[in-house]
Amino acid sequence: MEITRHNFKQVIDQVSEAVDEASFLCIDGEFTGLNNGPAVHGFDTPQERYDKLRKGSLDFLFVQFGLCAFKYETEESRFVARPFNFYIFPRPLNRNAPDCRFLCQASSLHFLASQGMDFNKVFRDGIPYLSPVDEQQMRDTLDQKHATQQLNSPPFTSGTAHTSDSTRTIQVPAEHKDFIQQTLTRIQSFIDSDEDTIQLEPCNAYLRKLIYSTVKNKFSSSVYLETKVGEQNQHYFIEVSKANEELLKKRGEEKRQQELDELDDAVGMSKIIRMICQSGKLVIGHNMLLDVLHLLHKFSYPLPQEIDEFKSLVNCLFPRLLDTKLMASMHPFKELVSNTTLGDLEATLGKEPFKVPVIVFPEDFPAYETAQEHQAGYDAYITGRCFTIMANYLGKFKSQSKPVLPGSALLEPFVNKLYLMRVQDIPYINLTGEDLKPNRDHVFHVTFPKEWKSNDLYQLFRPFGPIYIAWIDDTSAFVAMSKKDQSDLAYKMLCEGVSYRVRRYGEHKEPLAPHGRK
Amino acid sequence: MEITRHNFKQVIDQVSEAVDEASFLCIDGEFTGLNNGPAVHGFDTPQERYDKLRKGSLDFLFVQFGLCAFKYETEESRFVARPFNFYIFPRPLNRNAPDCRFLCQASSLHFLASQGMDFNKVFRDGIPYLSPVDEQQMRDTLDQKHATQQLNSPPFTSGTAHTSDSTRTIQVPAEHKDFIQQTLTRIQSFIDSDEDTIQLEPCNAYLRKLIYSTVKNKFSSSVYLETKVGEQNQHYFIEVSKANEELLKKRGEEKRQQELDELDDAVGMSKIIRMICQSGKLVIGHNMLLDVLHLLHKFSYPLPQEIDEFKSLVNCLFPRLLDTKLMASMHPFKELVSNTTLGDLEATLGKEPFKVPVIVFPEDFPAYETAQEHQAGYDAYITGRCFTIMANYLGKFKSQSKPVLPGSALLEPFVNKLYLMRVQDIPYINLTGEDLKPNRDHVFHVTFPKEWKSNDLYQLFRPFGPIYIAWIDDTSAFVAMSKKDQSDLAYKMLCEGVSYRVRRYGEHKEPLAPHGRK
Ligand SMILES: Nc1nc2c(ncn2[C@@H]2O[C@H](COP(=O)(O)OP(=O)(O)O)[C@@H](O)[C@H]2O)c(=O)[nH]1
Ligand SMILES: Nc1nc2c(ncn2[C@@H]2O[C@H](COP(=O)(O)OP(=O)(O)O)[C@@H](O)[C@H]2O)c(=O)[nH]1
Repeated sequence: MEITRHNFKQVIDQVSEAVDEASFLCIDGEFTGLNNGPAVHGFDTPQERYDKLRKGSLDFLFVQFGLCAFKYETEESRFVARPFNFYIFPRPLNRNAPDCRFLCQASSLHFLASQGMDFNKVFRDGIPYLSPVDEQQMRDTLDQKHATQQLNSPPFTSGTAHTSDSTRTIQVPAEHKDFIQQTLTRIQSFIDSDEDTIQLEPCNAYLRKLIYSTVKNKFSSSVYLETKVGEQNQHYFIEVSKANEELLKKRGEEKRQQELDELDDAVGMSKIIRMICQSGKLVIGHNMLLDVLHLLHKFSYPLPQEIDEFKSLVNCLFPRLLDTKLMASMHPFKELVSNTTLGDLEATLGKEPFKVPVIVFPEDFPAYETAQEHQAGYDAYITGRCFTIMANYLGKFKSQSKPVLPGSALLEPFVNKLYLMRVQDIPYINLTGEDLKPNRDHVFHVTFPKEWKSNDLYQLFRPFGPIYIAWIDDTSAFVAMSKKDQSDLAYKMLCEGVSYRVRRYGEHKEPLAPHGRK
Repeated sequence: MEITRHNFKQVIDQVSEAVDEASFLCIDGEFTGLNNGPAVHGFDTPQERYDKLRKGSLDFLFVQFGLCAFKYETEESRFVARPFNFYIFPRPLNRNAPDCRFLCQASSLHFLASQGMDFNKVFRDGIPYLSPVDEQQMRDTLDQKHATQQLNSPPFTSGTAHTSDSTRTIQVPAEHKDFIQQTLTRIQSFIDSDEDTIQLEPCNAYLRKLIYSTVKNKFSSSVYLETKVGEQNQHYFIEVSKANEELLKKRGEEKRQQELDELDDAVGMSKIIRMICQSGKLVIGHNMLLDVLHLLHKFSYPLPQEIDEFKSLVNCLFPRLLDTKLMASMHPFKELVSNTTLGDLEATLGKEPFKVPVIVFPEDFPAYETAQEHQAGYDAYITGRCFTIMANYLGKFKSQSKPVLPGSALLEPFVNKLYLMRVQDIPYINLTGEDLKPNRDHVFHVTFPKEWKSNDLYQLFRPFGPIYIAWIDDTSAFVAMSKKDQSDLAYKMLCEGVSYRVRRYGEHKEPLAPHGRK
């Protein structure tokens, strides 16, 4: 089900119900880019990887959020899947709301657009959001403004405190004197007429300011002015009404209520994320580290510097997470799955020795007869499908007839671990404990002239057996030796190089570590 | 005419011809955002405004470029307009090409998308571009690579130097031994067969690396491997061909030519901009400062720090520019035009005392029966339309029958001046001389607590007459006094304030000026 700001209010209860009834929830995000800054590499520590993503990946926008709620129906022995595909966009609520600047990566946008992502829909119809901090701040400002208004007389002008300032006398420049005089005459004859309201011709912000100011001077509070937007948001014009105390009071209250409603709309997408957090249910994603970082960053609190604090924050907000990419690359699946990319994984899990459970869609949901890869709702659905198949495979060993559901002890080895992409010897971030600290005595940090190619490194280490290269940048890389027992010899022979420099992994690390780790 | 990377090559000659024949050229750009960083204000100097735009506006992307070539046909006494609407996007050419990161502003994207801008087309089908510097660098790298290849034996693998490194021996991990063995067997039977080529099953980059490496080891140069992309760019697979020296040589040459062609494609949009520059024709835009900055920044050289050097650069590349927003706000149009926004200007110029000349479109161009505001090609056309009307109005005084065309002395007062938006007392940047330095003795720099509103400033200055406020940020603003003769008195009374601080414009400026100006 596609959700934009136009149908968001209608479907929010349906989403809430789906979350409440679900056995587990699957999520997926699409972003305007992946990374900006130092490249990730095969020997990042969890803290280093976290730092790189925190600094380099979060200025991109979260443009689509997929949520698929899976409910197990015992009687029918089947899953019911409810996939929701949310378009997200932080359109500024009004002239005074923050106007977000965000980053895009050309390759990501090209890729997503080629896969059918509808960016026009994102930018035009995306659901807005506010973090709790922004929401609180906007609520405070609004409360304060309303309190001031209630103290003073009913507002003469509409709009914000800022525009109401514009009622101070400003001088009318010579070239606009005629225009203003005509407007005042028009308003005078309106006051003398039977009409209740008139609309002035559309005009620009500066002329509107002049009108507010001179009308206030001339007619005091016998008329009420309100700036309105013409069709298709194309023009602003002023509406003039006859004013009396009651009307002014009523208009003031309407205006205040409208501002509160607008703020509520602006919270938008954040409500969905809060629902998911509050459900406490198992939340499943495929290669979900980046999704989790974006969700925290945009919908909860600024990310802490220390990975340990990040883990605490995740545990608070998403008490139970499961990453299917990690699951697929752990025993017993590792031996059966050669490629853990979502599409390939789905294909592998569709064949022997795996068994696909019955999954149905309610009537008002898409049945996904054709694949829609990289559409967040679809990917969330496929993630859940992969999860049920793998979970059931675990159950097979116990020959249970009921599927393996969240809560089963069989799933515990996979829970609260986030897949660490490309790292050679640390498969995951452990959310509920210490991370692995593998021995890296066979890894060297090598610097060299930027003309060097992999070939030069292979040559350099040739006497000591095969190597694995993890590029850091143009002039440095980590080199891991396949024959670990050759490490000391290699170091002895290479540490005095002239055009290059070889350091042991440990030696190199310490001085560069960005944070004092405990 | 809509132009994307798909029809770019077909129409480039047509564009070239239109430029060659044109009497003048109109341009317009659409960007993913307008500003990021310190706000512009009413008392920026030209250097300050230039600095703000240079630092805060150029990280946004140029997504659409409108070019409308106007040709005057003397016999028919009419203009022929050829509007081209280019979609632009710096899609990375290949895995090793730079992958651009750029900024977006939420309000701009929402606005453009609501006006009908097709961002899916931009991201999917946009024409790439390279600055002369990037082009030269890529050309050098390619030349160097080709020179090396010609020295060595014909390439065993396809692709870049980087991938050819991957032919070094890598160890095959246990879990992939079977897969690799099967592949080697398959290639052996291919070698023994009559077939010329086979395609291996699609697989991921890591497995492809293993295949390249083991095949090289086992079959030396008796087969030729090439990585190919499946339909819809979805899968990579390896194609295996039987190799002999001649084939390898031919493949190598094909590959080199293909790489040169790809580079030529990548230059893309830059060719159009170079055409415009080389034409030396009058280039017209509406409020074109930002367009000019983006054009120089993206298609020529990095922008210099000093505005004087910027002016020299503009004079080199665009020797004659005219800004219709400036023209409309100068005598004799100022008195006749109340709003210089493009749409409003067009409406004003459609009525008495103005006369609209005949403008026709060639058959294969859109006739624009409905307005398509904020579509760059359309806006460029409307800009030209406004220009011809204003130019003819100037001619009316001389009762010429021929329209006023570029070259006419009547236009000289408007040439090579770029409109400065919102600045109170400096209407334009003068590209061919010193900028105006108006007296600002009646302007004060005021700092205050961030709770202050305009009202507080009006109160503070009330004894000295009306003021104009130019906000700098939350805690400072420039205040200009309407009664200039009150300036000294106001300063004497206010300079000792406690909660606020009032400084004369000159006093405040000097220490903050970012560059020593001559
Ligand atoms: N000097 C040099 N640097 C390289 C080479 N290959 C990669 N790099 C550097 O390593 C970075 C990461 O490259 P990438 O292609 O992502 O390497 P991967 O980790 O092997 O996929 C690049 O930005 C380059 O700075 C090479 O052959 N020579
Ligand atoms: N303290 C304070 N700052 C303001 C007020 N109005 C505007 N500003 C500041 O001035 C900046 C520019 O505001 P803007 O609305 O663009 O002002 P404009 O130049 O009058 O259109 C804002 O980002 C604020 O930091 C105000 O009433 N009080």
